[in-house]
Amino acid sequence: MTKRKINLNADLGESYGAWTMGSDGEMLAIVGSANLACGFHGGDPLVMRNTLRLAREHRVSVGAHPSYPDLQGFGRRPMKLAPDELEAALLYQIAALDGMSRCEGWPLTHVKPHGALNNAACAERAVADTVARAIVAYDRDLILLAPALSQLAEAGRAAGLRVVEEVFADRAYQDDGQLVPRGRPGAMIHGAEEALAHVVRMLEAGALVAQSGKRLPTPIGSICVHGDGPDAVATARHLRDGLTALGYELVAIPAL
Amino acid sequence: MTKRKINLNADLGESYGAWTMGSDGEMLAIVGSANLACGFHGGDPLVMRNTLRLAREHRVSVGAHPSYPDLQGFGRRPMKLAPDELEAALLYQIAALDGMSRCEGWPLTHVKPHGALNNAACAERAVADTVARAIVAYDRDLILLAPALSQLAEAGRAAGLRVVEEVFADRAYQDDGQLVPRGRPGAMIHGAEEALAHVVRMLEAGALVAQSGKRLPTPIGSICVHGDGPDAVATARHLRDGLTALGYELVAIPAL
Amino acid sequence: MTKRKINLNADLGESYGAWTMGSDGEMLAIVGSANLACGFHGGDPLVMRNTLRLAREHRVSVGAHPSYPDLQGFGRRPMKLAPDELEAALLYQIAALDGMSRCEGWPLTHVKPHGALNNAACAERAVADTVARAIVAYDRDLILLAPALSQLAEAGRAAGLRVVEEVFADRAYQDDGQLVPRGRPGAMIHGAEEALAHVVRMLEAGALVAQSGKRLPTPIGSICVHGDGPDAVATARHLRDGLTALGYELVAIPAL
Amino acid sequence: MTKRKINLNADLGESYGAWTMGSDGEMLAIVGSANLACGFHGGDPLVMRNTLRLAREHRVSVGAHPSYPDLQGFGRRPMKLAPDELEAALLYQIAALDGMSRCEGWPLTHVKPHGALNNAACAERAVADTVARAIVAYDRDLILLAPALSQLAEAGRAAGLRVVEEVFADRAYQDDGQLVPRGRPGAMIHGAEEALAHVVRMLEAGALVAQSGKRLPTPIGSICVHGDGPDAVATARHLRDGLTALGYELVAIPAL
Repeated sequence: MTKRKINLNADLGESYGAWTMGSDGEMLAIVGSANLACGFHGGDPLVMRNTLRLAREHRVSVGAHPSYPDLQGFGRRPMKLAPDELEAALLYQIAALDGMSRCEGWPLTHVKPHGALNNAACAERAVADTVARAIVAYDRDLILLAPALSQLAEAGRAAGLRVVEEVFADRAYQDDGQLVPRGRPGAMIHGAEEALAHVVRMLEAGALVAQSGKRLPTPIGSICVHGDGPDAVATARHLRDGLTALGYELVAIPAL
Repeated sequence: MTKRKINLNADLGESYGAWTMGSDGEMLAIVGSANLACGFHGGDPLVMRNTLRLAREHRVSVGAHPSYPDLQGFGRRPMKLAPDELEAALLYQIAALDGMSRCEGWPLTHVKPHGALNNAACAERAVADTVARAIVAYDRDLILLAPALSQLAEAGRAAGLRVVEEVFADRAYQDDGQLVPRGRPGAMIHGAEEALAHVVRMLEAGALVAQSGKRLPTPIGSICVHGDGPDAVATARHLRDGLTALGYELVAIPAL
Repeated sequence: MTKRKINLNADLGESYGAWTMGSDGEMLAIVGSANLACGFHGGDPLVMRNTLRLAREHRVSVGAHPSYPDLQGFGRRPMKLAPDELEAALLYQIAALDGMSRCEGWPLTHVKPHGALNNAACAERAVADTVARAIVAYDRDLILLAPALSQLAEAGRAAGLRVVEEVFADRAYQDDGQLVPRGRPGAMIHGAEEALAHVVRMLEAGALVAQSGKRLPTPIGSICVHGDGPDAVATARHLRDGLTALGYELVAIPAL
Repeated sequence: MTKRKINLNADLGESYGAWTMGSDGEMLAIVGSANLACGFHGGDPLVMRNTLRLAREHRVSVGAHPSYPDLQGFGRRPMKLAPDELEAALLYQIAALDGMSRCEGWPLTHVKPHGALNNAACAERAVADTVARAIVAYDRDLILLAPALSQLAEAGRAAGLRVVEEVFADRAYQDDGQLVPRGRPGAMIHGAEEALAHVVRMLEAGALVAQSGKRLPTPIGSICVHGDGPDAVATARHLRDGLTALGYELVAIPAL
């Protein structure tokens, strides 16, 4: 009997110049795939190169994690770019990281938008279509890593891209499939045990499982874990070990 | 008898956001090759994409024109980056433009550093070596466009790159092959007639011809013309027409 | 009988580094007040200093023209900053220009937000309140220059600021007092004659006069003219001369 | 008998957006004066405002810590700006922080250049003169905090500024008064005990004390301690306690 495959992904390479963010070295020993900042919200060129090398050493597959041009706001500030500006900004970032990754002999496998851009692409089909168009223009073999049941996942499939759906280990869902906004009761799943239980519940249901218990069927290929915060590494490790113990095979995104 | 081949190159795509620089459309109808800004001193992603498309329409070969990260100083401020930082910054810029150029079906053919980085690479072998190393790391088939008799040209050849030497149509040379610094008498060659005469003198001598008349033998493959300033377009057109009338064949860099 | 006073204002000092924008020298000979970029969408420190000096020579009163942090989009991209981030960003810009203006012996008299920030402050009371709060925190004697009948004008008055209302010489209005969006028929008022007629109609009515002819009563203290575009200078000059001929006294904002 | 007064200063407020640097809260409980980043190498507007408020709570005097415009290199990359560009860049940064500091009721008392700019100003009189000129232009009552026996200290005095000389607790000196370059044996003074001994030796000698034992007489008003690194806080606290136990009175810069 073949094991069920699942991927763990994390946003890494988000340091910038003298500023460090996250525990990239430890996380790369745990996850199967890493989404790497491309310079617009974090990740200066040297950080990008060093993180690519580290990912290659750990055989962790890498994806572009492009952002709005917003260093000061870490790409978390909602912005509105004209579609052609946004498409060009995405091409630029994907190309920069992809070229550097090929230099390291460790080419990109996927793309996952960052922060406010990801939020907009999940909620607004026009933004999602622009993201999908940029990926298709650059390389239609790149996989789109998108939140399950989002406009982005739909736009990616409509554009002919292979889409891998992700769920969040530490966030609760609403009945419409959206995340419970931070700040509301129960929005965050605290603790490694709870996160594992939340994830396993969804994997076994083949569905997002909302706070209410409502199930929203969806393929789930990947689980997003966070690389910063005091418990990030321990939680990620617990997820990996727990899923392995339950018989899941943890793989990189292209091996799903 | 085969005609002697020569290339005209210009730095283009240096607009940024709402700010326009140069007469890119007119210059692309004249030159054989264009060096395109990569976002660090000019050239936002949309400017890059639009200039690549325009270059393709005019069948003008394109090169990366990477810079120090210095938007405010337009890449003209001397800076000192650690070698690994500089190499990564060059890879990033070359990769970004190259990826975008391949999307447009009009791949990069060469690299020419910009402004203060170019000055440093002409004068300091260590900087020149870093530039050459970045190009080799990215793609050893890219041509290095470098000022004749510079450290950069030498470093490029030492690294195994194909080097095309350029001279400046509007600048006088010193006996050591360096440009006469702006501000000194006779530093600038004024007028289209004078520029053509200056260039032809050097092409026929197969040498830089200094103010003193001294000749410094060197291969000359390309002539750098400027795309901004009130007379830029007229001067470039006069050079092209004058050289054609004298029997030169004007070609793109890869066809030299 | 005292003449009726009116002010002409323009957004100036929006060049950046090697990039020039607008005809600041000519415009400063025409307008009574200038809104100067503060570095976030245009206006590097040297441009700011030079424009302040030029304004002082022309006895043109100066105001801060702060923006979202968006050099690539020239401050025209809608963004969403948390209120405390926006307030701090406004304080920073106002303080930078104000300190430099006092060095030149030509202190700031007013504040007018730029581009997408101005649009948001006109439409959303919460953004308008943040703008007003930043000005009050910095110096409650600064005048707020705001579009007539906007949320911004109201927020300014509610915060105890002196508000001067402006109308646009080259834009048509809707029945609700909003500008006709660019792209719709008749959105732009073309030609110097038309612009003067548009402005005079509103000044004499003491109201915005919409495309439909509908009048929306409002005080009008200032007329915004543009400093870039091929006819900008000629239009501004025609407005000044036309208003003077009609008996208006053209003054700086603090003299209204 | 009056106690001898001495100041401890640290570079703080160097976080940026989502990136945190240093232990500002703990350091502000120890030092007498803080040099605050002004946005060009660190310190976004909200970080600046929050750090100013924290400094006021701790009654720590604040100074501007202006930098080259180099976020990616944290202001540590040598650059060369034309004198008028550098002067304007300094005015801009000092003005921005000063205006914000007056909003908080906690005005600036001094200026200390950052990183590569400070290094250049210590070694090159022309750069030092530009720094001094900017401070004088802005407010001649601001104190210049400069390394003892540097060109910067001299330029400040020549410009009529009050200069306070600082020494470094964790760096060894050469016979010419320059710091032993990092990387050379003994360049760094390790451990809180050693740092205190190093400082006390110099304070009692009224001189820089070089590695060789050579003494270079100079006034010493302030000791620079670092706010980042694993032992920074403990070292700073040990210096404060040790100096207090030895009878020194620890004061803010204006109280020297």
